[in-house]
Amino acid sequence: MKTSRTQVKRIPKRGHYDQETVYSILDAGLICHVGFAMEGQPVVIPTAYGRIENQLFIHGSPASRMLKSLQQGIEVCVTVTLLDGLVLARSAMHHSMNYRSVVLFGTAELVSDREEKLKALYAFTEHVMPGRWAETREPNGQELQGTTVLALPIEEASAKIRTGPPVDDAADYSLPHWAGVIPLRMQVGEPIEDPQLAAGIGVPTHVERYVERSVGMANSLKS
Amino acid sequence: MKTSRTQVKRIPKRGHYDQETVYSILDAGLICHVGFAMEGQPVVIPTAYGRIENQLFIHGSPASRMLKSLQQGIEVCVTVTLLDGLVLARSAMHHSMNYRSVVLFGTAELVSDREEKLKALYAFTEHVMPGRWAETREPNGQELQGTTVLALPIEEASAKIRTGPPVDDAADYSLPHWAGVIPLRMQVGEPIEDPQLAAGIGVPTHVERYVERSVGMANSLKS
Repeated sequence: MKTSRTQVKRIPKRGHYDQETVYSILDAGLICHVGFAMEGQPVVIPTAYGRIENQLFIHGSPASRMLKSLQQGIEVCVTVTLLDGLVLARSAMHHSMNYRSVVLFGTAELVSDREEKLKALYAFTEHVMPGRWAETREPNGQELQGTTVLALPIEEASAKIRTGPPVDDAADYSLPHWAGVIPLRMQVGEPIEDPQLAAGIGVPTHVERYVERSVGMANSLKS
Repeated sequence: MKTSRTQVKRIPKRGHYDQETVYSILDAGLICHVGFAMEGQPVVIPTAYGRIENQLFIHGSPASRMLKSLQQGIEVCVTVTLLDGLVLARSAMHHSMNYRSVVLFGTAELVSDREEKLKALYAFTEHVMPGRWAETREPNGQELQGTTVLALPIEEASAKIRTGPPVDDAADYSLPHWAGVIPLRMQVGEPIEDPQLAAGIGVPTHVERYVERSVGMANSLKS
C-alpha cells in the first residue's frame, strides 16, 4: 500500500503500510474526514463510514454536495485519526500527542446495485455498533433509492502511529519539569433512552455490551 | 462569517455562524484536520493547533510538505470535529451521531516575527493544557528558527451541531426497537510519568487540575 503519495515523509519510523494496521485503525474509528476539491477549493467534511474487506463506504443524501462531487470520480483523501494521549515534554517544543491515523487516497465509485448497497449500509450500521442492524427496521426500497452510497478502495493507504513517552533533548532531562503522558480515550456514557420510547422496551443486549466493553477499556486507563 | 462557501447546505438548521459558537468548538478540540491540494491531489492531515482571537495557528518542521505547501498561500480548509454521541434510531437509515464541528476556509500566512511566533507557540501549548507553558523550558532561538508557524484567519467559518434524540419516521415510533443516545466524550486517564523522570518530581497542579476537570465532565455523563 506504499506509494509516493502515501509514503510517510515526516518521521518515517512512525509510518506503517501493512493491511492489518490500516484496517485495525479504520475499524476502531467512528468518523473519518473526507477531503476533496470543489471548484478548486479544498473541503474537509467529517462523516461516518463502514468497511467491508478492502472497501471503505460513505453514504448520505443524493443532495449532498460532497457525495455529488465525489461520484464524479474525482481524487479524494480520507483520514481517520484516533487520539491516544497528550505527550508532555520538559521543553515546550517537544510536546506531542500519541495517536493512530490512516490517510487513504483514491477515487470513489457509486454503489448502485441494490444488494451491494444494502451490504454497505449493513457494514455502516454494524461499524457503529455490532449487533445493531438485527434490531432495527431495515431500509425499504424508497430509502435505498434515496441514499447515495460511495465505495473507496483501501489500496493506497498509510498509517501513522505515535506511542510512548516524550522525547526531550538530552540536556533537558535534568530540568525540574514533570514529563509524561496523559492517556486519552473515547468514553461511553450510560444510554439515554429516547423520550418517545414506547413503554416496556429495555436497553438491549448489544447496547449493554457496547457500553460495558468501553467501560472495560476505560478502566484499563487507570494504571 | 457566512459566505456561499461556508453556508451549511445539508440540514441548514444545524448551521451556526456566530463567533462564540465557532470559537467554543475550536477551543474544545485538540486536533484539527487540514485539507489542501498538493499537485492537484487533496490531502487531509491531522495536526494540533492553537487559537489567539481570530487566528488559528498550526506549526511544524520547515521540512513538512504540508507547511511548505500552505505557506505558498494556497487555499486551505481546516475542520475540527467533536463527537458527542451515537444516535440509535428505530430504523437503520435514521441512525446518526451527535457532534459539534467547525469548517474553516482561507489561506494561511507564515508567522516570521520572533515575538509573534513565540505568542503562537504559547497559545499552542496552553491550548493543549492550561498552565503548561510556565512549567516547561521555553523555545530557544534555534528552536524558534527551526519551527514553521502558520496563521489562518478565522473569518470564513461555519459550525454544525447535532444534539438530542433520534428522529424516526412517524410510523416507526411503534416499532419494538430500543432507540436513544449513547453519549461519548474524551476520557482522560491517570498521568503516566516519563520512565526517565528525575527523582522527586511529583505530578504538578496544572496536570492534576486537567485530569480532575476531565473526570468531573466524564462523571456528568453518568445520568
